[in-house]
Amino acid sequence: MADIAALPSRVESDSMGELTIPPGKLYGCQTQRSIMNFPIGSTESRMPLPIVYGMAIIKKSCAIYNKSVGKMDAAVADAIVKAADEVVAGDLDEHFPLVIYQTGSGTQTNMNVNEVLANRATMHLGGEVGSKLVHPNDHCNMGQSSNDSFPTAMHIACAKMVVETTIPGLTTLLEALKEKSEEFKDIVKIGRTHCQDATPLTLGQEFGGYAQQVEYGIERVNAALPALYRLALGGTAVGTGLNTLKGYDEKIAAQIAKETNMPFVTAPNKFESLAGHDSLVEMSGALNAVACSLNKIANDIRLLGSGPRCGLGEIALPENEPGSSIMPGKVNPTQCEAITMVCAQVMGNNVAITVGGAQGHFELNVFKPVMTANLLNSARLIGDAATCFTDKCVVGIKPNMDRIDQLLHGSLMLVTALNPYIGYDKASIIAKTAHKKGQTLKEAAVESGYLTAEQFDEWIKPEQMIGPKDT
Amino acid sequence: MADIAALPSRVESDSMGELTIPPGKLYGCQTQRSIMNFPIGSTESRMPLPIVYGMAIIKKSCAIYNKSVGKMDAAVADAIVKAADEVVAGDLDEHFPLVIYQTGSGTQTNMNVNEVLANRATMHLGGEVGSKLVHPNDHCNMGQSSNDSFPTAMHIACAKMVVETTIPGLTTLLEALKEKSEEFKDIVKIGRTHCQDATPLTLGQEFGGYAQQVEYGIERVNAALPALYRLALGGTAVGTGLNTLKGYDEKIAAQIAKETNMPFVTAPNKFESLAGHDSLVEMSGALNAVACSLNKIANDIRLLGSGPRCGLGEIALPENEPGSSIMPGKVNPTQCEAITMVCAQVMGNNVAITVGGAQGHFELNVFKPVMTANLLNSARLIGDAATCFTDKCVVGIKPNMDRIDQLLHGSLMLVTALNPYIGYDKASIIAKTAHKKGQTLKEAAVESGYLTAEQFDEWIKPEQMIGPKDT
Amino acid sequence: MADIAALPSRVESDSMGELTIPPGKLYGCQTQRSIMNFPIGSTESRMPLPIVYGMAIIKKSCAIYNKSVGKMDAAVADAIVKAADEVVAGDLDEHFPLVIYQTGSGTQTNMNVNEVLANRATMHLGGEVGSKLVHPNDHCNMGQSSNDSFPTAMHIACAKMVVETTIPGLTTLLEALKEKSEEFKDIVKIGRTHCQDATPLTLGQEFGGYAQQVEYGIERVNAALPALYRLALGGTAVGTGLNTLKGYDEKIAAQIAKETNMPFVTAPNKFESLAGHDSLVEMSGALNAVACSLNKIANDIRLLGSGPRCGLGEIALPENEPGSSIMPGKVNPTQCEAITMVCAQVMGNNVAITVGGAQGHFELNVFKPVMTANLLNSARLIGDAATCFTDKCVVGIKPNMDRIDQLLHGSLMLVTALNPYIGYDKASIIAKTAHKKGQTLKEAAVESGYLTAEQFDEWIKPEQMIGPKDT
Amino acid sequence: MADIAALPSRVESDSMGELTIPPGKLYGCQTQRSIMNFPIGSTESRMPLPIVYGMAIIKKSCAIYNKSVGKMDAAVADAIVKAADEVVAGDLDEHFPLVIYQTGSGTQTNMNVNEVLANRATMHLGGEVGSKLVHPNDHCNMGQSSNDSFPTAMHIACAKMVVETTIPGLTTLLEALKEKSEEFKDIVKIGRTHCQDATPLTLGQEFGGYAQQVEYGIERVNAALPALYRLALGGTAVGTGLNTLKGYDEKIAAQIAKETNMPFVTAPNKFESLAGHDSLVEMSGALNAVACSLNKIANDIRLLGSGPRCGLGEIALPENEPGSSIMPGKVNPTQCEAITMVCAQVMGNNVAITVGGAQGHFELNVFKPVMTANLLNSARLIGDAATCFTDKCVVGIKPNMDRIDQLLHGSLMLVTALNPYIGYDKASIIAKTAHKKGQTLKEAAVESGYLTAEQFDEWIKPEQMIGPKDT
Repeated sequence: MADIAALPSRVESDSMGELTIPPGKLYGCQTQRSIMNFPIGSTESRMPLPIVYGMAIIKKSCAIYNKSVGKMDAAVADAIVKAADEVVAGDLDEHFPLVIYQTGSGTQTNMNVNEVLANRATMHLGGEVGSKLVHPNDHCNMGQSSNDSFPTAMHIACAKMVVETTIPGLTTLLEALKEKSEEFKDIVKIGRTHCQDATPLTLGQEFGGYAQQVEYGIERVNAALPALYRLALGGTAVGTGLNTLKGYDEKIAAQIAKETNMPFVTAPNKFESLAGHDSLVEMSGALNAVACSLNKIANDIRLLGSGPRCGLGEIALPENEPGSSIMPGKVNPTQCEAITMVCAQVMGNNVAITVGGAQGHFELNVFKPVMTANLLNSARLIGDAATCFTDKCVVGIKPNMDRIDQLLHGSLMLVTALNPYIGYDKASIIAKTAHKKGQTLKEAAVESGYLTAEQFDEWIKPEQMIGPKDT
Repeated sequence: MADIAALPSRVESDSMGELTIPPGKLYGCQTQRSIMNFPIGSTESRMPLPIVYGMAIIKKSCAIYNKSVGKMDAAVADAIVKAADEVVAGDLDEHFPLVIYQTGSGTQTNMNVNEVLANRATMHLGGEVGSKLVHPNDHCNMGQSSNDSFPTAMHIACAKMVVETTIPGLTTLLEALKEKSEEFKDIVKIGRTHCQDATPLTLGQEFGGYAQQVEYGIERVNAALPALYRLALGGTAVGTGLNTLKGYDEKIAAQIAKETNMPFVTAPNKFESLAGHDSLVEMSGALNAVACSLNKIANDIRLLGSGPRCGLGEIALPENEPGSSIMPGKVNPTQCEAITMVCAQVMGNNVAITVGGAQGHFELNVFKPVMTANLLNSARLIGDAATCFTDKCVVGIKPNMDRIDQLLHGSLMLVTALNPYIGYDKASIIAKTAHKKGQTLKEAAVESGYLTAEQFDEWIKPEQMIGPKDT
Repeated sequence: MADIAALPSRVESDSMGELTIPPGKLYGCQTQRSIMNFPIGSTESRMPLPIVYGMAIIKKSCAIYNKSVGKMDAAVADAIVKAADEVVAGDLDEHFPLVIYQTGSGTQTNMNVNEVLANRATMHLGGEVGSKLVHPNDHCNMGQSSNDSFPTAMHIACAKMVVETTIPGLTTLLEALKEKSEEFKDIVKIGRTHCQDATPLTLGQEFGGYAQQVEYGIERVNAALPALYRLALGGTAVGTGLNTLKGYDEKIAAQIAKETNMPFVTAPNKFESLAGHDSLVEMSGALNAVACSLNKIANDIRLLGSGPRCGLGEIALPENEPGSSIMPGKVNPTQCEAITMVCAQVMGNNVAITVGGAQGHFELNVFKPVMTANLLNSARLIGDAATCFTDKCVVGIKPNMDRIDQLLHGSLMLVTALNPYIGYDKASIIAKTAHKKGQTLKEAAVESGYLTAEQFDEWIKPEQMIGPKDT
Repeated sequence: MADIAALPSRVESDSMGELTIPPGKLYGCQTQRSIMNFPIGSTESRMPLPIVYGMAIIKKSCAIYNKSVGKMDAAVADAIVKAADEVVAGDLDEHFPLVIYQTGSGTQTNMNVNEVLANRATMHLGGEVGSKLVHPNDHCNMGQSSNDSFPTAMHIACAKMVVETTIPGLTTLLEALKEKSEEFKDIVKIGRTHCQDATPLTLGQEFGGYAQQVEYGIERVNAALPALYRLALGGTAVGTGLNTLKGYDEKIAAQIAKETNMPFVTAPNKFESLAGHDSLVEMSGALNAVACSLNKIANDIRLLGSGPRCGLGEIALPENEPGSSIMPGKVNPTQCEAITMVCAQVMGNNVAITVGGAQGHFELNVFKPVMTANLLNSARLIGDAATCFTDKCVVGIKPNMDRIDQLLHGSLMLVTALNPYIGYDKASIIAKTAHKKGQTLKEAAVESGYLTAEQFDEWIKPEQMIGPKDT
């Protein structure tokens, strides 16, 4: 925005003295001080923008509430709302330069949001940036403490990420796996236990197992949402709600629910909301279980698609990038690799969240930014990777029918189907002979004289080995 | 049991040849072979007995079912049931010597149970041990595959441990914390955020926050139980249910539910039940969140009870062991130490379970024993430690009223209550003077001349700072 | 750079077809394809630039080598070198948009670097961007495979980060802790075990313990460097070195060592270098141990500085941000909070690295980007946070002498010094009386009649309790 | 021992009152009190015996030292030495019933050892058990505090486990892998990257990569030993060495070194030794890196041995247990499963150790038992599993030559060897034709007319593709 970009450098002051704010920046002294005090990490350590947006939603909701109860001048409130909308729209991202590794209560990011909104709202009212016409504390922070607003922003940010990214991504994957399960329902293939040949199943059943894992995963993630819907706002500094009026907490939660169109409620116990963040640990645990599922599924798909000549080769994965120019059919399972790397990250994030969650002291857990950043990362990565894995891999999977049939019929496991006809001992002799001589079962069976080729074809029907019997 | 202890050493054989079974042991060749093949770890690596008991419950349930449908001779079935009851009662523990680190499907423990039950049932029928009058495979394993029975035993064992130990322990703790919260509801004390003095709250509110954490923890654990109630039995080797009749899975799950008096059901998708164990990862995630809560609570209690002279000293912990003989009042927070060590273990176990859960291949996850052993350990440790921490610590906590009052009134935070009467600036001057001179607020206030001692006492009422205002 | 910014959009093609490259971008088709195939994560998921720089160092070194042996035209080589220098200088950062979650071998980032260098070198030679005058594969990738060059870049990037950021940061912290240890060497204070009052030590000894932890930490990190100095380059696709000449690996490692001024050598076994990344797991383990140290130290400092009135208050931390406007002396331990959040992250990263490191298949570990990104993050965070914690916290720590003395002399632990003079029993009576009546030891001692005030002062000398006796 | 078993139940007392000690037990009141106070966990939660043995070594060493300097009566010292030898020999294991989850300093296990040694030494001197003829504190604990003796026992126990179990196990594995690497050095096989067919290497090179990983692993473990060789003894309660004479620490470390024949030394900084246990975190990090290696190796071997018909099948694993009775050649990779479960456990243990190591307070880390138990578990599991995996799996691995040759020559990757003769384009056409038609390369090559069968055999020599060229 041209008017912001044109802002000259200016000197602002706070209780610790004066500081020069760079040109074109809306933030103020406390943000600048945090930049100087916490030069830790690089771009990957920046405070995640969804938290900033969550804070802006709170500021907007509080302005609306404070205007409605007559505590805030309407013009000021409207200007804050307008500025907050700009923040949520992503128009002011560059004005939030702080990092995760700051005050553990997120106070400095709260002030960063207050400062930016105050200056931007001041601009909307025609005032001079830095004049505090709209005041970062008195107006933007009205009715909030960092200690209750930051955890509220954490919950808003995490719940939104889960609802808008994680669950849609997993749902996309679930649908695709279900479709593949249906598409492959008549393809009988060899089963594998201990990575060794086992009794047959259908490729559809195999993908149905994957679909079931993802379906349960979605249930797990959904089950952890209610804890995130409980908001701390109204607890103020230590959870008591000092300096608020009774009922404020419920009204402000309702306003946030309306603003976000999500079922947020006020937390019944604010002491728990400030001092512990088990709700994030819980959600991370659900995402961790999902990561286990995804790792298993992607690893299976990578191995089932291994080859083209020297692997299992039962399925063909879509080719998304140039493979070897001279090696046709070599399709690297890049989507499997991306999503299993995501799983490793999610498992690591889970430990970071756990370590942070275990260490609160007294009335305040001060690992808030690092816990939230890791949870947002996990939730986003799983959602994005599930979508990507679906679109670029799962939907394009094709069965290699020749290979599937070759392995199924080359296997010796089918011999068990002969037991009812020729008895266990003769069946066993056939299998052992085939193994020793490197024959197919049919070759060994016919050679044995215990049955004819026609009987073999009649008795050995893998498609009848894929479920319980009716009677 | 004398008859078992009197068993002489004997030679048994299986398809790989003969082996000598030590005297006094009910197990057979496959167990003996596993002992020889997996000399890994010490007593702490033994296959947990709850898994063995879970397997015995399956064997009993299958015998009852198989008898009822006429597939098993009634006398044999009854003998198996009798033997299985002995196993579940813990009478035959010494006959299950195998370790966790064996076949990843738990096959060898399945065979260990089969062998012990077969020999013991044979004894009940008056047969000779080793004679296979009751056969480990043909009878004890009838209608089961290791691949579906072992994960069924995993679920039975874990669900029982959670229901019988974890939840009762946490419930005990919850009740005690609630009682303390009520008992302490009028004790106003200094709050602490960032470990720094903050606005007051009651000791009851502080303990109420702890209670809320534990209450949510119980909800988390309960929410993860339904996944454990889904049983794999009936999936046989690869999940298809090959060699079973339709409906077998439901009937056997119903039998197990009846036997355990727990709401077990057959898993709707057996492929998922054999190939993935996300249900254990899910429960471990819930226990991990509980560990975060407990670590926070115990750490707070340890610090609140620190002293006797040089710590915070707001509460006194019960003295359970001789402290320093010359140092009266030094009560080491040993129960806090024990339970925080439990939390560290549970967090570690969660990673072991996650790593195992992420690595299944195709139709079978082969990290079954290590995943189950870790989950059982976590579930038991949390239950036991919560009970112990409650009984030996929480219920005996006493407030040190003198210290609490001294800190509260020595604090400068109460100055905020003067703002409405003398204004922010004068209040600030009083606080700064008190800080500089090391005075109490009251001393500095009276000395300032801004208010009288009587006004101070009237205006500064911490008990009015512990909640929102009515209007 | 104006010439780059002015680049128009253009159509490039590869073996899979045509793609439009956005204006102002130096990269080509394979990069564009990766952008489309892997829309996973946000800014925090970008491939870390140090890996890109590491790749550029390789490209430069290979160009120099290939020119020297006559395999590459001098002008082309020089242009690549010039372009690579620009990359390493950070001038072309915006042309590396790929994310961590891509091909697990990092192939696409290798191609990204090849494409950017080829186009930029082409510009330097006066050619047209996209013309492949300098060819991404034939020139920029000459003598390399992704499979050996990417792990080489991993090692270069990680070793540089550790040497340039981690170790300097820790060394800064070590020096500051040593200085504090010296500065505080005569300040006798109460010791605390189990968070309970214990026998005295000096504040200098306490900080000396911290210094020792950091000193060992530096040794641990240094001990893990040699494994990172072993480079994979020369292993080509599977570790055999197919298509290279004998000695190439040593020469190229020497060139990289010269270029970086670091003691890189060729790995003696290239199969290990491509298929496993235990060297990263090892370094992460060292950083994890450092994180344990830092967490302990920062946690102690936070608690020792707790107060101002209601905590331990033995030390005062520097005030870097506005604290409470009305609450003088409330200095939030923000630097402690930042660094303990870093520790939580490093512990989480360690698990992500471990999970990735455990899962390679056959000749190639395909968790390369996620492992490296996490290790770089840990190494940078520890280095930055250690520096920041030192500069903004440790160097400014002041002892609160009054408080230290008050606690020391208010403690009852000093009574042990009376044993030699009045015997254990009388000493014990004095301590118990003091505890019961809330007296100081001296008060109780004099009141007891067992000794005089003068004797008390002569016999109780905490400064003689801080070390072993000479005889 | 009959004399101990015959001990009647007796009443003992300590400062908290009287307790009944069960018959046949050598321990006393404090042990009994700990049993009652910490009913946490089952057999797997028992304090590891190596820690008890480590404590006994300390008691013995102190008795020898105290006798030598005239502080302890020779007869008493000799009786303690004799009793301690019995403990170390494992003769008194049943008298150490305490669990890990007790006082975090291990004080109760220290007292358990003191009580058992005192009573046993009293027996050796002809005294009455419980009479304190040899006194648990005055004699057995002379010159020690729990705070310095327990961490000393931790280091002794862990160092011994690593030296006696971990390193021998890994060395056994290394030797076997090296032998296999040599044995397989001429077997050329297909390489696999991204689980896809790649250029060839020898099976010997593949196993050589594994050997290299293990060799580095041994180096990593060895590099972490010196930190464990530093002993805390002499630090007494808080690290100052109060109540010791100068030089005591060095002399007692020398005595322990002599006793154990291991290079123990006194720690230069005792504050670090009591307050932090980074040395255990360091060793656990090394074992964690080893676990990554072992997981990768075992996973490769499981997949290379997959089949018998439908997997990769390049190697055959020894058959240790009855496989499927009807399915010849199905050899479950049970040793791979056991060792990968060990790896999952070690990774989990690493997190438990890290969480414990990060949380010490002031002069004492109180996660000592849980950290040590996990490290001992990891060290033992890796050593045992490496030995077992070697003996029962690695040494018996056989190459399936037919399968290896079939895959190698069936692969299309060899086409790259034709480039120098017929050019890239024609080679590419051959490969694509072979892929499309499902032909072998040779079939497609001859059919193409670009070369003859003889030329094919002369030009395509995989054995020349397994290393760099001479010129």
